Parts: sequence; C-alpha cells; structure tokens
Amino acid sequence: MGGDRGPRVIVPSAVNYLHRNPEISIILVGIPEAIKAQLSILNVKLSHRLRLYAATEVVDMNDQPSLALRSKKDSSMRVGVNLIKNGEAQACVSAGNTGALIATSRFVLKTLPGIDRPALAVILPTIKGHTYMLDLGANVDCSPEQLLQFGIMGSALVSSVEKKEKPSVGLLNIGEEAIKGNETVRQAADLLHASGLNFYGNIEGSDIYKGTTDVIVCDGFVGNVALKASEGVAQMLSTYLREEFKRNLLTRLVGLFASPIIHTFKRRIDHRRYNGASLLGLRGIVIKSHGSADNYAFGFAIERAVQEIRSDTLCQISKHIVESPYYLANQSLQSQSPSEKEIL
Amino acid sequence: MGGDRGPRVIVPSAVNYLHRNPEISIILVGIPEAIKAQLSILNVKLSHRLRLYAATEVVDMNDQPSLALRSKKDSSMRVGVNLIKNGEAQACVSAGNTGALIATSRFVLKTLPGIDRPALAVILPTIKGHTYMLDLGANVDCSPEQLLQFGIMGSALVSSVEKKEKPSVGLLNIGEEAIKGNETVRQAADLLHASGLNFYGNIEGSDIYKGTTDVIVCDGFVGNVALKASEGVAQMLSTYLREEFKRNLLTRLVGLFASPIIHTFKRRIDHRRYNGASLLGLRGIVIKSHGSADNYAFGFAIERAVQEIRSDTLCQISKHIVESPYYLANQSLQSQSPSEKEIL
Repeated sequence: MGGDRGPRVIVPSAVNYLHRNPEISIILVGIPEAIKAQLSILNVKLSHRLRLYAATEVVDMNDQPSLALRSKKDSSMRVGVNLIKNGEAQACVSAGNTGALIATSRFVLKTLPGIDRPALAVILPTIKGHTYMLDLGANVDCSPEQLLQFGIMGSALVSSVEKKEKPSVGLLNIGEEAIKGNETVRQAADLLHASGLNFYGNIEGSDIYKGTTDVIVCDGFVGNVALKASEGVAQMLSTYLREEFKRNLLTRLVGLFASPIIHTFKRRIDHRRYNGASLLGLRGIVIKSHGSADNYAFGFAIERAVQEIRSDTLCQISKHIVESPYYLANQSLQSQSPSEKEIL
Repeated sequence: MGGDRGPRVIVPSAVNYLHRNPEISIILVGIPEAIKAQLSILNVKLSHRLRLYAATEVVDMNDQPSLALRSKKDSSMRVGVNLIKNGEAQACVSAGNTGALIATSRFVLKTLPGIDRPALAVILPTIKGHTYMLDLGANVDCSPEQLLQFGIMGSALVSSVEKKEKPSVGLLNIGEEAIKGNETVRQAADLLHASGLNFYGNIEGSDIYKGTTDVIVCDGFVGNVALKASEGVAQMLSTYLREEFKRNLLTRLVGLFASPIIHTFKRRIDHRRYNGASLLGLRGIVIKSHGSADNYAFGFAIERAVQEIRSDTLCQISKHIVESPYYLANQSLQSQSPSEKEIL
C-alpha cells in the first residue's frame, strides 16, 4: 500500500466501499501491522470479503521504476499485481509510484497481443458529460502505431463501460487542418482513418472540454501537460472566485446566500470524482489512483476497477485489437513479453 | 487586414487606441475601400497619426503559408511586415493567419543572430499575477537548442517589459524529477542549466497557473495544447457556474445579488485581456492577435506592441542572446537568412 498516505487512506476507503457494495470482495495488500492498525482504529475485522495479503516492503514514491522492479520483489505493488496474474484478484488498484506501477504491471502481466506499451486513460468532465483521454503520461515520444493502439483501446473501453457502439475518436493536434501538427500525428491520423474506428479527425486542446469526441488520443507528454494545466486553471479560478466573495462585508454576505450554489458547483468540478486512471493494454485490470487521493477519491478508483470487471473491458479491448485491420495486416504482431531490461 | 473579422474590428480598435494614447501613431494596412468604409462609419478622418497604406489582397485564414508567401506579395500582411523592414513602422500587429504571419515575418525580417526560428510567447494569468509562456505553436518538434533559445528570449522579454532582473525560467515537463520526460527535454534542461539564466528546473502543467516561474519554456505543440485546454476548462467552468445560478427561482434570485461579484470574477479571467502573442526572435516586433479578437481584445494586442517598443525588447533579446554562453561557444552561429523554400 503506497501513495502519499498509504493505509491511513486506503484501508478506510476500502472498508467504506465494501459497506456500499455488498457483492464486492477486497484484498488489502501491504505490511500487515500497518493495515491491522488501521482496521483496529475502524473497529473492523478481516473476513472472507476483506482479506489481507502480506507484503514485506513498499515502493517509495521517489523510487526509480528500475529499483522497484529489480530490488523490491515483495513490495505491496508487486504482490498486488501478482494476485491478478495468479487469478486471485480480478483487478489491482494502486495509489503508488506511477512509473513503478507501469513497469511492474508490464513485466508481470504482459501486454495484450498487438499492444506495444500500456497507456493511462482518464475520464474528464465536459460541457456535455464526460470524455476519455489517453495517454496521460505512461509513454513519451509515441509512434503513430502506438497512437493508433490508444485509439483502439480507448474506443473499446468506452464501448464496454458506457455501452456505446462506435464511440467517436479524436486525435489531439494543434490545428483542425490535416496539414498541421508534427509528422507522428499526421501519420497517426492516416492509420486511424484506415482503422475502422469512428475516427472524427484532428481536435484541438479546446475540444477536450467541449466533449467533441468520446475518446481523445494523444502522446503521454502532451496529455500529461494538458491534464495538469487544466487542473491548474480550475484551481486558480476556484481561488479567484473565493477571493471575489471575500472582498468585503457585502460580498461576504452575498457569499453566504450563494454558498449552497457554489458548493454544488464545486462538487461538480471536484477532480476527486474523476480519480482512477486505467492502465490499458495489459492482460489484467490495473487502476492508478492519484498518489494524494483521500478516502473519498480512492473510492472512485475502486469503482473504476469494478466497472471494468463488470463490463468485461479486458475482453473487449482484446477483441477490438485482434479484429482491427491494422492487426490483421500485421499478423506477426505478438504479445510483448519484454525482459526487465527492455521495460526500463 | 485579415483575421476572422478584418477591418470591422481592427479599424475601430485602432481608432479607440489612438484616442486613449495621444503619443502613438498607427498605420492601417489593407484594402483602402474596406478601411475607408469603416472610418466613415466612425466618422474619423485619416491624419498624420492615422495613416493608410494600401494593399491589394488579403491572406485568407485558410491559405497555406506557402501560398501566402509565394503568391500574395501585395497582401496586407506582407505590406505590413515590410513597413517594419523599411523602418516606417516599429511594430506590426496582425489578426491574420498564424502560419502565414510566421513564414512572412521570418522571410522578410529574418531571425536575430543565434535564433533558429521565431517563437510565439503569450502572457497567462496566475494565482500570483502572470507568467510568460513560449512556444505556443510556431514550432513543433523543437530541438534542445531551440528550447534554450526560447528560454533566453523569454527571459529577455520579461526583464525588459517587466523590469525584472534575472526572471526565473521553468522547463515544462511531465515530472519534476530530472529523469522524467523525453530526451529532448532532458537535453534542453542541461543547456538551460549551463545558460547563465535563472533556470528553475523542470515544472509541470499545474505550475503554469501557480506562477511558479516568470517564464515557461515548451515545445509549440505542447504549449498550444496546454493553452487551448486551459481555455476550454475556463469556458466549461463558466458554463457550469451560470447553470448553477439558473437552476431554479431561488438560485436565480441569489444570482441577481451575486451578479456584480460574478462580473468582477469574469472580468478577471477574461482571456481577451491576454490577447496578443509576441513573435519573438525576429529583427522586428510582430504581434499576433487572436483571429476572432473583438475591438476590446485587439486593443490589448496593440498595447503589447507598444510595450515592447517602449521597453526596447528587441535590443534586449539580441543582447541576451549574443552574451549567452551558448552563443559564445558557437560563434559560428549567424543570422538565419533562409530562402522561401527553407521556410516552408
């Protein structure tokens, strides 16, 4: 159990989730003493629905992924991912070190046939509802083929979780015209056009929150910056709004009356409700929670895992990939079974 | 006079600006009939402070930069940029086609010694005040050396316009740790460290609006997406806020009382006040206004040009570059005087 807050947040969040969802079972993975201490604070006992799986160490948030993979073979992260491989768990949710989680998952679970590397997908709110964006930082310097794979995986994710046939897929670029953007994006657009997906074409940064498409495909560097810049803007606007209502006695009074409205507004834009990025393209469901997630936020990451299990997302992704013209034209594509060295 | 709205917006905006700034003179460049029609609506006459320079054609917003450069040699854009070269104007402000403006400016004015390609720099609001970010889309696939040049130019811009000695420079990346990001960004960080600039190090997307640094350096693709995503979030939040205040009769009533506060809030985040991107690195001041800018917004783009003239920004940038260790170590660097073909 990693993340910035470890068992202090994850144990109560898991216990809450079990209360609300009687058909779910959770295995807590980590240092037994730390977990038991939290359970005793909550006055909750282990049961067949809430089991404990011991690990002797924890991946630190600052550990190099290589160190985590090579030297911490009994970390809660590694043990948790192993549970999927061994069929003891259907999904793994972690608030730990992102790089280590990607490396560990990729090494232990392997990627699906036709997938080079896993990608991080998140749900984002839009004016119309919400959209799915990938990659959010698992990959920098993506090839056109990887961007195509992101499109196929994102489309399969939305069609399984949202029961939406042929979700629209947009390619993040700096202009709508096909001539704009760099060579990689131009080639990716060609591949996506020929992919059989419902490819909308190029979209711009402003389209993300307009909800122009159901899926947004981008390089992990660009996606990560866009996401974090968006969080930054929301934070700044929130600060500005608070400042305006606190400007003087009169504005404070109005603020008092407006507070239920502001509260609903803030709840609506609360990024904690979008916590939980899917690590797509693996032979197992792995969800990355924000490292600083609180009890409330972590519950959404668990919910994301449950949704993907129920929607049979993994099977849908596999199916979409092996049926894609790209895969069929490259029958030689096999599951990647990289060594530790290749992963890092 | 290009842009989405042409003389209908630009002429009244220029006339307004002259009223407010009696020491400034403006040359209107475009199709004389179109400009004169707007002047007659405003009942304003040409004078020594408001002159007209005729052009026979206009670069269309959808024209390829190559077409604009090769075939529209008497466009308002080309004539306007020529005025700087001939010493008849100290700056050029355009709401026209971005790609064409960059290509035209680069071809006509040439870049400064030590600068490979010009970059677009904008001012963005932050929690603390504001920050300068470049590049915003003039360059995709930047080299580490270009990112260094952006750092030097951005630093010179801030130190001249804001009278700030040694502005801090951040490099946009996907993690604060030096190991993260792609190879280009890693190499750029090394160059920036050795540059003599006040280099802060890597920053993340969320740092943009925190105001972590005075200058933010990034590749044009990433910068463009981050900027447009930010505008998208602000737009969505604004819509959400309006919706919450219009939810029912009671919230509408509260909204009535809160409207002056919301108005101040909206004014504060009004992106029109940040209109005007500086095309840095040229032997002349060129400001790109948003194509869809209105009268109010276009005035800020003119103001940006006037500020750079008054602050002697051009000279400051030249000075910073030729004094940089990078330039001194590469004395062979000469002004780029590319042909039309090389530019496109």
